[in-house]
Amino acid sequence: MNELKFPEGFEEVECPAEKTILLIGNKWSLLIIRELILADRPLRYNELAKNLKKISSRTLSKKLKNMASYGIIKKTIIDDSPIKVEYTLTEKGRELYKVTQPMADWSKKWHKF
Amino acid sequence: MNELKFPEGFEEVECPAEKTILLIGNKWSLLIIRELILADRPLRYNELAKNLKKISSRTLSKKLKNMASYGIIKKTIIDDSPIKVEYTLTEKGRELYKVTQPMADWSKKWHKF
Repeated sequence: MNELKFPEGFEEVECPAEKTILLIGNKWSLLIIRELILADRPLRYNELAKNLKKISSRTLSKKLKNMASYGIIKKTIIDDSPIKVEYTLTEKGRELYKVTQPMADWSKKWHKF
Repeated sequence: MNELKFPEGFEEVECPAEKTILLIGNKWSLLIIRELILADRPLRYNELAKNLKKISSRTLSKKLKNMASYGIIKKTIIDDSPIKVEYTLTEKGRELYKVTQPMADWSKKWHKF
């Protein structure tokens, strides 16, 4: 595994819940995690881009790079022709369903959909 | 109960977990919720300000106002001398422990503290 790299100031944050927010507390990270959980298999960059319709290529690349550096997803390069790049949740990433599911449950109970 | 008011674009968000992040996905909101959960009683503005050492008065006021407008906390004005202002979690707010606890658990498992 590559060395992990967290956002600036991450190590100094004392509240555990706040650390989680620092890593996944934004729209696109949540949606990428959801895609990977639902797919339950590695997804190629193009599959993610297709499913997350409105995401720009720049944002998707940046989010994937960050999430890999946090140890949430793993990037695999397959030496095929053409070369394939796949992303999969790590064990740390898969366990995020324990966080995102309660988030969704709370919201469904208290807001209109 | 006063009419609820959500952030701009909130109603259009389709992902329930994302709605939760929109409401509580920031450091100070999480810490205010934690204070109120731990206290398990109404807290006065000054108590919150004292416990959240580094928060500015402006930020605390703004966060409390927002969280009241989301239906997460309730502001009560007590006609005493001097007038007291107390904040308490609503039922919607109390149920956020189901979200913040898994956030903390995940972080504690995967990061150093």
